[in-house]
Amino acid sequence: MTKSLLLRGGRLVTMDNSRRIVDGDVLVQDGRIKNVGRSDGRTAGRSKPTTIDCSGLIVLPGLVQAHIHLCQTLFRGLADELRLEQWLSRRIWPLEAAHTEETVFWSAMLGAAELLLGGTTAILDMETVRHTGTAFEALESIGIRATVGKCLMDAPTNPPRLRETTDKALTESSDLCARWHGAAGGRLRYCFAPRFAPSCTGPLLRAVSDLAEHSGATIHTHAAETPLELDTVRRGTGHDEIAYLDTVGISGPRAALAHCVWVDKDGIERLARQGTNVVHCPSSNLKLGSGIAPIPEMLAAGCRVGIGADGAPCNNRLDAFAEMRLAALIQKPRLGPDALPAGQALELATLGGARALGLEAEIGSIEVGKCADLIALDLSGPHAQPDDADLISRIVYSARAGDVRHVIVDGRIVVQDGELKTADVGEIRRAANTQARRLRRAVGL
Amino acid sequence: MTKSLLLRGGRLVTMDNSRRIVDGDVLVQDGRIKNVGRSDGRTAGRSKPTTIDCSGLIVLPGLVQAHIHLCQTLFRGLADELRLEQWLSRRIWPLEAAHTEETVFWSAMLGAAELLLGGTTAILDMETVRHTGTAFEALESIGIRATVGKCLMDAPTNPPRLRETTDKALTESSDLCARWHGAAGGRLRYCFAPRFAPSCTGPLLRAVSDLAEHSGATIHTHAAETPLELDTVRRGTGHDEIAYLDTVGISGPRAALAHCVWVDKDGIERLARQGTNVVHCPSSNLKLGSGIAPIPEMLAAGCRVGIGADGAPCNNRLDAFAEMRLAALIQKPRLGPDALPAGQALELATLGGARALGLEAEIGSIEVGKCADLIALDLSGPHAQPDDADLISRIVYSARAGDVRHVIVDGRIVVQDGELKTADVGEIRRAANTQARRLRRAVGL
Repeated sequence: MTKSLLLRGGRLVTMDNSRRIVDGDVLVQDGRIKNVGRSDGRTAGRSKPTTIDCSGLIVLPGLVQAHIHLCQTLFRGLADELRLEQWLSRRIWPLEAAHTEETVFWSAMLGAAELLLGGTTAILDMETVRHTGTAFEALESIGIRATVGKCLMDAPTNPPRLRETTDKALTESSDLCARWHGAAGGRLRYCFAPRFAPSCTGPLLRAVSDLAEHSGATIHTHAAETPLELDTVRRGTGHDEIAYLDTVGISGPRAALAHCVWVDKDGIERLARQGTNVVHCPSSNLKLGSGIAPIPEMLAAGCRVGIGADGAPCNNRLDAFAEMRLAALIQKPRLGPDALPAGQALELATLGGARALGLEAEIGSIEVGKCADLIALDLSGPHAQPDDADLISRIVYSARAGDVRHVIVDGRIVVQDGELKTADVGEIRRAANTQARRLRRAVGL
Repeated sequence: MTKSLLLRGGRLVTMDNSRRIVDGDVLVQDGRIKNVGRSDGRTAGRSKPTTIDCSGLIVLPGLVQAHIHLCQTLFRGLADELRLEQWLSRRIWPLEAAHTEETVFWSAMLGAAELLLGGTTAILDMETVRHTGTAFEALESIGIRATVGKCLMDAPTNPPRLRETTDKALTESSDLCARWHGAAGGRLRYCFAPRFAPSCTGPLLRAVSDLAEHSGATIHTHAAETPLELDTVRRGTGHDEIAYLDTVGISGPRAALAHCVWVDKDGIERLARQGTNVVHCPSSNLKLGSGIAPIPEMLAAGCRVGIGADGAPCNNRLDAFAEMRLAALIQKPRLGPDALPAGQALELATLGGARALGLEAEIGSIEVGKCADLIALDLSGPHAQPDDADLISRIVYSARAGDVRHVIVDGRIVVQDGELKTADVGEIRRAANTQARRLRRAVGL
C-alpha cells in the first residue's frame, strides 16, 4: 500500500455537507484523507508522497454500489428477456447451484475488475449459498472495498440444491462473519444476506437480525421487487412485505433492501421512519420488467437511498454511471423533467451508498479523516463538452465508465491511467471465460 | 480516400436478410463492399489493399441515428431538467437564434466527432434556421454520412428571431438542396426539415412535401412528442397530429417523424399503412419527461422505426449504444421482459435508420454492393465477458461507445484504434468551448 499519496491539481467534487466543488489537492496518509485543498505535499516527518497528476481531471469520492451479485458475473448474457421468476428458476438458481470455488473466485474477479475500472470503489455484495469465503479471497486481492454476504435460503420452497437448514445457514454465516468482518484493515466486511422473504423462514430472519446487531454487520436482502413476491409474502405471513420484514427485525439503518419497486405510501413512511436503506436498481428493474421504484417519493419522505447495478445477468453492466443516469431519467415521464435531478443521482451513488453499507463516517465524500476512496475522471472527450456546463450534469448525464482514469481504494492505487494495477485483466478474462463455459456445460445451457 | 481496404478476420454481424453472423473478411473497393467472407485480399488489377486487422473484433454495419440536432451540441448541459416547452422557449430557441456561422460549424464538428468515435456513421440531422451550409461544410470535412436540413419555422407564433417568411424558408431550402443534395460523392444529402407542425403553416408543409418529392429528398420533422403539442395541433387544424401531417403530405417512406410518443392505435395503423418512418428517441423522451413511445406496438403493426439521440441538451450524449440499450429496457415494465429484445434494438440502429434516411439500398447491413460504412468493436473488456454469451445481447446490453475501435465511412477510415483520423479532437474541443462561451454570453446564460 502507498503510505502517502498526493492527488495534485484536480477539480474536487467533495460531496461534503455544503457540496463544495473546489480546485485543489487531496493528500492521503495511511489510507485516510489528511488534507483537502491547496497542499505543499509535505506530510509531517515523512518522505515526499507519491504524486498523481490530476490537473484537468475531476476528482470524486469513489462510487458506491449497494446491491451487487458478484457470483452472477459469469452468467452475463445467459438469462436475457426473462421475467424475474423464470429468470431465477430457469437460469440463476441452476447456475448458482453449479458454482464451484473456482467459478465463484473468477466471477468475483471479473465483476470487481469491471467495477473498479468503472469507478466503483465499494459494494454491498450478495454471493450464493456456497464458497463465500472464496469470493472474499478474490476481493481481498483485487482491492475493492466490499461488504459481502453468503446467501441464505432455508425455506422448504427453495430449489433443493440451494436449500440449507436454518442451522447450517446461520452457523456458516457466523463463521464467515468471524473470519472476514473487518478483514484487510477493515476494507472487507460481512453482511447477513437472506435472499428474500419467500426464500427464508421467520426463525432465520429473526436470528439474522440478532446476529447482525450483535456483530455490528449489515443485513442485505431483496424486497418488494415484483407484485408476485408481494402476494407470496402476504399469503404466507398476512403482512405487506416491508411490514413483515420489520416485524422480524429486518429494518432500520443496519438493513439494506434492494429494489423496493412495489412500495405504497405506508411502506415508504415505514422505511423512512425506521431509517431502513433502500437500494435502487433502475436497469435491473427495467430489464426484468419489474417496474420503476418511487425513488423521488422515498427521498421526499426522508428515506435513505443507495443505488446498484444488481447482477450482471439482469443489467448487463456493473456500471455506476449507467445507473446514475438511468435513475435520473426514468422518473421524469411520471413526475416531470425536474424529478430526481443530477445532484440527487450523484448522492445515491456516493453518500446514499455509504449509508447503505453503514459506512457514512468512512466513505461517500472527500473529507479529512475519511477513507481515501477516490476516483479521477477525464471529461475532456467530445461527449462531455462544453466544459463549462454544470459539472454535476456532466458527471451524471454525459460521463461514461470509460472516462475513469484513476481509482484509489483505502489509499491504494488500484487503477492508474485506465489500467487495473492489482490484477491482470487478460488473465481474468481467460480464466473467467473458461469457468463460464464450465458452468454452462454443467447446467446444459 | 482509401481506394481499396480489407477488414481482415473479424466476426461479422451482417444484418443481412438471414441475419448471418460469420467469421471472415470484408473487402472494400471504391467505397463499396466488394466481398464478404473469406478473401485472398486481391482486387482485380489493383495493388494490395490497405489492411485493418480485425481479429478478435466484432464488425458491424455503421450505426445510424435518424434524429440528431448537431447545432445543439454546444448547448449540452445548458438546459437540464426543463419540460419541452420551457426547454425550447427559455433555452434552445434563444441559443439557436444567437448562432453564427462559427458556432454552427464547431457545434457540428463537436457532435460529429462524438458520433463517429461512438460508432455512428450516418445521421439524419436538423440544423437551425440559419447557417446550414456551414454545417454541411463541417460534415464534408469530418467524413460522416449525413442527411441535413435547414429548420423551417414560418408560423406567426414562432419567436421573432427565428421566424422566416414561407418564401424565404422555402427558397433557402431549395438552394441548399441544389447545392448539397448528393454532395461528397453522395455521402451528404439534403432533407426538408419543418421544425414541427405548430411551428409551420399549412402552405409551407404542403410545399415541403412537393419539393421533397421533386428532389428525391427526405422530410425530417418532429411529431407527437407531448400531449400539449397534440392539443395545439388539434385546436389549430381539427386533426390528430399524425393525420394532419398526412393531409399535408408529410407521410410515407420519404418522411421521418421523430418521437411519436403520443400516438394511438389509429395513428399507429396510419403510420404503418403509409410506410412513414418513426424515429424513436428514448433518452430524450425520458429526459424531457415526454413519455415512452409505443415502439413494440409500432413494430408489430409493421411500422418502419429508426432511433436517435436527438440533440445534446436533451440527452446529454449522442451515443447509439446508450439509445439501443435504453430502447430495449424501457418497454419491459409495461410489456414484459421479452418486449423489444436485443435483436430488434440493433435493427432500429441499422436497418431502421437506413430506411429513415431513404438509404436502405445503400447502408444498414454488410452486403456486397452496399456502401462501406463499417465499425469494429473490441468487446474484450471485463464488462462484455463471458465472450460466448449471445453476441447481439453483448452488443446491445453490455457494449459501450468506448468499445468502438475502427470506423469506416464510404470506404474511408475515419476512426482507427479509437482515434479520429479526419479532424483534431483537441482543436475541436478548444474551438467548441470558445464558441459555447460566446453563445452563453450572447443569451445571458
